[in-house]
Amino acid sequence: MREVAIVGIGQTPVAEQWDKSIRALAGEAVLAALGDAGHGRPDGLFVGNMLSGTLNQQENLGALIADWVGLRGIEAVKLEAACGSGAAAVRAGWLAVASGAMDCAVAVGVEKMTDTVGAQTTAALATAADADWEAAQGLSFVAINALVMRRYLHQYGWKHTDFGPFSINAHANATHNPNARLRDGISEADYGRARMVADPINLLDASPIGDGAAAVVMVPADALRRNGGPVVRVIGSACATDSIAVHGRRDPLWLAAAEQSARKAYAQAGVRPGEIDVFELHDAFSIMAVLSLEACGFAERGQGPRLGLEGHIRPSGRVPVATRGGLKARGHPVGATGVYQIVEVVQQLRGAASGTQVPDARIGMAQNIGGSGATVITHILSTN
Amino acid sequence: MREVAIVGIGQTPVAEQWDKSIRALAGEAVLAALGDAGHGRPDGLFVGNMLSGTLNQQENLGALIADWVGLRGIEAVKLEAACGSGAAAVRAGWLAVASGAMDCAVAVGVEKMTDTVGAQTTAALATAADADWEAAQGLSFVAINALVMRRYLHQYGWKHTDFGPFSINAHANATHNPNARLRDGISEADYGRARMVADPINLLDASPIGDGAAAVVMVPADALRRNGGPVVRVIGSACATDSIAVHGRRDPLWLAAAEQSARKAYAQAGVRPGEIDVFELHDAFSIMAVLSLEACGFAERGQGPRLGLEGHIRPSGRVPVATRGGLKARGHPVGATGVYQIVEVVQQLRGAASGTQVPDARIGMAQNIGGSGATVITHILSTN
Repeated sequence: MREVAIVGIGQTPVAEQWDKSIRALAGEAVLAALGDAGHGRPDGLFVGNMLSGTLNQQENLGALIADWVGLRGIEAVKLEAACGSGAAAVRAGWLAVASGAMDCAVAVGVEKMTDTVGAQTTAALATAADADWEAAQGLSFVAINALVMRRYLHQYGWKHTDFGPFSINAHANATHNPNARLRDGISEADYGRARMVADPINLLDASPIGDGAAAVVMVPADALRRNGGPVVRVIGSACATDSIAVHGRRDPLWLAAAEQSARKAYAQAGVRPGEIDVFELHDAFSIMAVLSLEACGFAERGQGPRLGLEGHIRPSGRVPVATRGGLKARGHPVGATGVYQIVEVVQQLRGAASGTQVPDARIGMAQNIGGSGATVITHILSTN
Repeated sequence: MREVAIVGIGQTPVAEQWDKSIRALAGEAVLAALGDAGHGRPDGLFVGNMLSGTLNQQENLGALIADWVGLRGIEAVKLEAACGSGAAAVRAGWLAVASGAMDCAVAVGVEKMTDTVGAQTTAALATAADADWEAAQGLSFVAINALVMRRYLHQYGWKHTDFGPFSINAHANATHNPNARLRDGISEADYGRARMVADPINLLDASPIGDGAAAVVMVPADALRRNGGPVVRVIGSACATDSIAVHGRRDPLWLAAAEQSARKAYAQAGVRPGEIDVFELHDAFSIMAVLSLEACGFAERGQGPRLGLEGHIRPSGRVPVATRGGLKARGHPVGATGVYQIVEVVQQLRGAASGTQVPDARIGMAQNIGGSGATVITHILSTN
């Protein structure tokens, strides 16, 4: 298979965008990415989206968005893997280009979660849980994560405040990101006194939803490399799954799919965790940031909070995470999030992460999670 | 890219299956297909589904179904393209195997549309239309097709009864298919006096919804060919799109995406329409059967009904369609339909289409349509 380069990125702010329909949001990101790439007509469009059917009464986003951006006729489909939908779309586009089936593919993640006329958002998000065995018992998605966090605190003996650095780092980084949903820094005191959502998850452990879209343009890397100049290449792409219902897992505190997905991506890329310069992880809740770091080999089991407490997760640290705000502060427009993560890694590798640039970033990883660890898609990017 | 063979097929009846959840339905088809293939553990699972979020309160079907069938851990995602979701999943699995990314992929289409606790089915199906420009104006999905059929009758001067042969042929064929939803033959008189749904579409122009799942197992063809014996190979796979809103098309009576998708598939397969022995088309409404035949080059523009009136669409005819009942009588569990079509073409190429076998069938085509022609995916299969 051919090596694939990401040559264009685009994004909208994550916000309440009541003046924009879902096609307008997606179109903005796609056209920005194509403009950035200097590319006219891609061969295919892969859309990552989770909730358009329930919240926007609109399915078949592939054809809808292709037509809206002036690409009527091209191949276009939607990929869905709950909150992992964005990276699923990138992976589908990557395979299309890597295989030679397409010479240019666009992946766009989009979600419109406010100003909707459909189902209530919390109910819609619960479709990421197991409908029969979790949601039907009255568990919301945040409640499932709260049970996991509660168990983690109990089993490994951490205090709630030990998770604070993840939220504080994310908010601090977001102040430099004009597209972030929450651009206000928060203090340890703010974190400690935040309103409880589902004990022990408080408002500053949880990521905010929002409307947003992000897109990337992918082409074969070879031609670009011959031209010289820096190229952002995809050197690893992998997907793995686990049971959706957390109670069905051997260990509810271990993200087996994240581990497997990262391992496959590391092997494909030929890198070790220590070589990753920046890691855009799936901090939908602070507990998920911790579990991701452990599953991907950045911390020992039960020791994830230490990375935050010792300052390693900051842009200047050993494992910079959420460098543009992460899900926590850039925001979590669910089906779009996985593409935002990759856009942000590209910004880092281009040296364009204004205000939160990781010094000499060469290799970046993005990990997008659907459900509480059910579908995990990992991408590793490199610049020469 | 490698040539891909379909070595296993599985399906459930299309029916009201109140005793089976969506995962149970999908699991039945996947396990049947793996059993038929004699294959243990595929590398990936591609799920075609349109409405699980709205009708079953369940997203992330990839992980859900993988886990249910004992494949926890493998790569799994959902593909959505409205009623074209099934073929989108097959195409994704085809690319995974053709590219060398996987050595065995399963595609399963599944839809559970009865005994649901969510949105009303007609409203859910309207998400295949343009939410802002069609559905919001009060158009249901059948109403859109009725406007197209009305225009067709007016423009080309056909009578409603000229469409009868499509429904009569589908019902006649379904009497031989134990998995069909409607297994009763119908007469010309039945067709003429059927209750009106959305004038001029009556109950016998429209396909019935239902619960069902179908699956195929795909592997590289080369190893099999070395073993000798007949192999069903995928010799064409293509996807094209059009505007979702029918009013946005240059000609509302021409399925441009069906034409483009079929042309690409013909070119890839190196065949002409006249070489297709069996054509499983997307007869969601009788008008769609006619428009598909015209777009794919089997009839002149405006002359599709003639194929029915002259008997060419029967299993013994020149262009056999709906040989196992089609959407009209096998049933239309929307996200599953595209996989049923391919399963049925495989049955024909294996000589296993009991009761409706097309004599000496060697090349078969399946065309799956999302929306009223918005996303069209065509597969051409061949046996040596």
